[in-house]
Amino acid sequence: MRRLPHHDGSALYVPEQAPALGDTVDVLVRVPAGGDVRRVHVRTTPDGEPRFAEAVVDRVDGDEVWWRAPVEVRNPVSTYRFLLTGRHGYRWLNAAGLVAHDVPDAGDFRLVSHAPPPDWARDAVIYQIFPDRFARSAAADGRPAPDWAIPCDWDTPVVGRGPETPYQFYGGDLDGIVERLDHLDRLGVNTVYLTPIFPARSNHRYDAADFDAVDPLLGGDAALARLADAVHARGWRLLGDITSNHTGDAHRWFTAAASDRYAPERELYYFDEATGDHESWNGVTSLPKLNWGSAELRRRFATAPDALLRRWLREPYRLDGWRVDVANMTGRRGADAYTHEVAALLREVVTQTRPDALVMAEHGHDHTGDLDRDGWHGTMNYVGFTDPVWSWLRSGRRPAGAGGWRQPLPNFLGTPGGVRRRDAGTVLATMDAYRSLVSWRSYTHSWQLLGSHDSARIRTVVGDAARQEVAAGLLATMPGTPMIFAGDELGLTGDNGEDSRTPMPWHRPERWDRGTFAAYRSLIALRRAEPALRHGGLRRLHHDPDTLVFARESPDGAVLVLARRAAARPVRLTGLPAAENVYGGAPGLRPDAGGRVTLPGDGPTFQVWRLD
Amino acid sequence: MRRLPHHDGSALYVPEQAPALGDTVDVLVRVPAGGDVRRVHVRTTPDGEPRFAEAVVDRVDGDEVWWRAPVEVRNPVSTYRFLLTGRHGYRWLNAAGLVAHDVPDAGDFRLVSHAPPPDWARDAVIYQIFPDRFARSAAADGRPAPDWAIPCDWDTPVVGRGPETPYQFYGGDLDGIVERLDHLDRLGVNTVYLTPIFPARSNHRYDAADFDAVDPLLGGDAALARLADAVHARGWRLLGDITSNHTGDAHRWFTAAASDRYAPERELYYFDEATGDHESWNGVTSLPKLNWGSAELRRRFATAPDALLRRWLREPYRLDGWRVDVANMTGRRGADAYTHEVAALLREVVTQTRPDALVMAEHGHDHTGDLDRDGWHGTMNYVGFTDPVWSWLRSGRRPAGAGGWRQPLPNFLGTPGGVRRRDAGTVLATMDAYRSLVSWRSYTHSWQLLGSHDSARIRTVVGDAARQEVAAGLLATMPGTPMIFAGDELGLTGDNGEDSRTPMPWHRPERWDRGTFAAYRSLIALRRAEPALRHGGLRRLHHDPDTLVFARESPDGAVLVLARRAAARPVRLTGLPAAENVYGGAPGLRPDAGGRVTLPGDGPTFQVWRLD
Repeated sequence: MRRLPHHDGSALYVPEQAPALGDTVDVLVRVPAGGDVRRVHVRTTPDGEPRFAEAVVDRVDGDEVWWRAPVEVRNPVSTYRFLLTGRHGYRWLNAAGLVAHDVPDAGDFRLVSHAPPPDWARDAVIYQIFPDRFARSAAADGRPAPDWAIPCDWDTPVVGRGPETPYQFYGGDLDGIVERLDHLDRLGVNTVYLTPIFPARSNHRYDAADFDAVDPLLGGDAALARLADAVHARGWRLLGDITSNHTGDAHRWFTAAASDRYAPERELYYFDEATGDHESWNGVTSLPKLNWGSAELRRRFATAPDALLRRWLREPYRLDGWRVDVANMTGRRGADAYTHEVAALLREVVTQTRPDALVMAEHGHDHTGDLDRDGWHGTMNYVGFTDPVWSWLRSGRRPAGAGGWRQPLPNFLGTPGGVRRRDAGTVLATMDAYRSLVSWRSYTHSWQLLGSHDSARIRTVVGDAARQEVAAGLLATMPGTPMIFAGDELGLTGDNGEDSRTPMPWHRPERWDRGTFAAYRSLIALRRAEPALRHGGLRRLHHDPDTLVFARESPDGAVLVLARRAAARPVRLTGLPAAENVYGGAPGLRPDAGGRVTLPGDGPTFQVWRLD
Repeated sequence: MRRLPHHDGSALYVPEQAPALGDTVDVLVRVPAGGDVRRVHVRTTPDGEPRFAEAVVDRVDGDEVWWRAPVEVRNPVSTYRFLLTGRHGYRWLNAAGLVAHDVPDAGDFRLVSHAPPPDWARDAVIYQIFPDRFARSAAADGRPAPDWAIPCDWDTPVVGRGPETPYQFYGGDLDGIVERLDHLDRLGVNTVYLTPIFPARSNHRYDAADFDAVDPLLGGDAALARLADAVHARGWRLLGDITSNHTGDAHRWFTAAASDRYAPERELYYFDEATGDHESWNGVTSLPKLNWGSAELRRRFATAPDALLRRWLREPYRLDGWRVDVANMTGRRGADAYTHEVAALLREVVTQTRPDALVMAEHGHDHTGDLDRDGWHGTMNYVGFTDPVWSWLRSGRRPAGAGGWRQPLPNFLGTPGGVRRRDAGTVLATMDAYRSLVSWRSYTHSWQLLGSHDSARIRTVVGDAARQEVAAGLLATMPGTPMIFAGDELGLTGDNGEDSRTPMPWHRPERWDRGTFAAYRSLIALRRAEPALRHGGLRRLHHDPDTLVFARESPDGAVLVLARRAAARPVRLTGLPAAENVYGGAPGLRPDAGGRVTLPGDGPTFQVWRLD
């Protein structure tokens, strides 16, 4: 494969990773020697007007020329791109790629001068826990099931789609999590993210009835304090989950609002005063939508000294941040467009309260317009990671809508026809399309995930352990913060989000896929050992329909990654040094007399080499 | 060429062209029969969440199936795209094209519920006049040149780059324009756009010294009233030019601000109180930048009952709107980002004052982020029209940086290396890249131009009359509002913006290129006669490096356009009816026995056929 000029926002190319407004920082671009590039400029748009600065040669490294140019961080988000001029015209290089035609600025590289996310976030490996299904402590036995619940044994099958789905109650609690932290330690994660823990009238608790207390069914406030202590004692972080788009209809704000049109809570929601109806999440009337046009809502939710957003970040709970539910809809309703204001407000309040806290947005489709705005630190990257990986690795033996399935494997984005099988080129095009519209910072601080409590399980999507290992390999080696939904590491299955909320089979060791656990464990350890996997740039070196090859490169080392969904032709690459295999068991790489290394052709496989 | 599924925002596909918030409107997509499309859905994102609605077959028309689906205008800008599902997977169709991978929403089609631009704008043909250089009335002889001026005879050569450039004073005035309106009438334009007419200390007057009076050198307020009367008497429109980014340093606001740090005008600008320095346009200190964070500026400029933005729209001047200078920088300065607020404010005030007024933004690079926001009605589409047309048609005999030129033909965007010669495919990719990021409404209401007082002249760029005719043909037949810089229709030349500000050679008829004038006149007449050229959709039918073929189609008729920069192979197309040639002189089209029509291969040429 022909080498291409390359730049991304990682430290090899942008040595200053946290530029301040007013700084001028260097950016570098690497260009293969011998191509048609005679001059390089960087183009910026300070205060909205294009400017060009000529780059100089910083160094020649092997068969590559590294050019360097200054960029003024003139605006909170300062964009730049490179102009590569040769005998045969010019090409632009921006985050959207290398093109010979003119392109809008939306795909330009971005320097963001807002305060960066906390340091710990970029080294985090997140473990997502759905409390009702994770683990029960002995104390749970003493708690009667609530009136709305359908009590279930830990072995009761989960009903993924039915009237009982939100009410099956397994009784997992926070002390149960404390008791199982050794499992997380063996896996190697270092951040626990809990789906909601406030009182509600469902097992998922996204219908909060109260934001001021931890659900007594989970052990109450004291249990959260115990869990926080235990998590922090290991040097880990603990994240909560907050619904900013809606509450439950049992929430005291809503009951007050619904019962009295003159109640101060009335303005927190959207009521049609003619009919008395209220706006709700996707028409589910038990989830009334919050009105962020209300100053009182902003006060109660965020700005008041004891607002819910603040209090759980403080002693004795010390949550390390929030995942914000349905952030994509928060503040959006008809002509109301408060989303960016709300994101900025929530971030401001959270980081005021706790400077090292994280604020992550759930976003189920195109998040690109909502990042880089001094609001969300990142998003759950379903569209730019989960969905492409699914469609590349999904089981070919179970075509959508046929085979052993009653219906197509549902795509959590709701796309009719479900998850389609696609080749690597198509999948990379999808990843690139989303990546190119956000800063490198927002991209790498977003969570990449293979599934969650809102989706099918990766094992069900790909169909076998071998391909799940490839998926987990991508999770551990691509830029972005890995998030693992509890149970994926045991090879659990699930057809959709609700069906995937499987109780953890602690007492059924025969159901554990120990090979999958070992793969996850090794891959996480590898990520934590290799700075390049956490902080390096991303450079593609090869793809064919069944194969992806890329390098992660940082000032502190570099690795080469091979992912195959099936056996294919061996891949020959030039310009690489000898390299030791550090995952997957393939031989080390040794350049032949022609300077070429050969990557093996078997598959499915996932291999990583450390480049010297 | 294989036909592709097609949709754009024109009336064939979106019958309701001015949807209101809350409406549900139909959208249609045409799909060639016999391809791999079995189902069609439309995807929307109401309140930020994706939704799918299945389309139904509206009708089968020849070899095309027209599918129809509803879209709720849920938000001020509601996006939509089509999902085309077949045996072999699905493809998305949005404004960015037809793709097999997933793509962000930025390229989706858009329904805009803001009030549309005035009706007259979509049928406008704009004629841009730089008053100092257009025409002198007898009254001008009686006016002494101002102190800053270098008085020039009408025959004095314009100095395009030098210390005297802004001071060469030819003395054109507004009554001079009145006297020449018959020329505009012969040409066929119907809207006059004047570059600034306020007192200043330069010939271009973008350094306003006052916004409350017309420059006495142009005849003063009374002359503007006379010009407005004359223009309106012909049923035409008259547009002014306002600098919202800066004033001149002779402006009384600035002199007051600079002389007294406690003056109320101080906050209208950006002063560094430590040094006394002020922020200015691109470092030109005589053009101090306005600070839109100032409430007082908003009041004086826009909201006060007698604010400048309002008063010139009223009797006896009745300007029909404003072109806003340097709109791309207005309100942008470091951390200040008031641009969208200012655009919305200016539009609100202008349309309050005069509901049928137009507000157009100058934007010198990527305008896509600044449209569709209830602010600017459109922009000067340099990036999506001028620059692509230049690079397709530029003279091959005069390569950039060589030949008869001392330096490369400057690209007004400042791109190093100047205007590169590019093939049609590259040029179309550029046009598409910008078009796809704005609504059809903003695209078609933006001005397309071949040059202006800020650029080289099209004749100089393309080198000869034959190619200028091709350029003028595209100007008259592509979507967007044509704007002609006075003198282009006579074949005048100019190497850059300043050099192009040529006095009109009224008294030198031997310098007129009468063939070029006739071509412009016929093309404008054609545009005004054919509804499809003003309101139709745009569907590409063929391109090769030297050739563009497209159809403009509306409920009221359709035309076929062939543009060639050079001779090339004849183009054969299927599926077209017999068609009469209405511009260019080629034979009519007659389908052969195989149903094919053949478009001639000679060139440069520009041909238009009316499709029955």
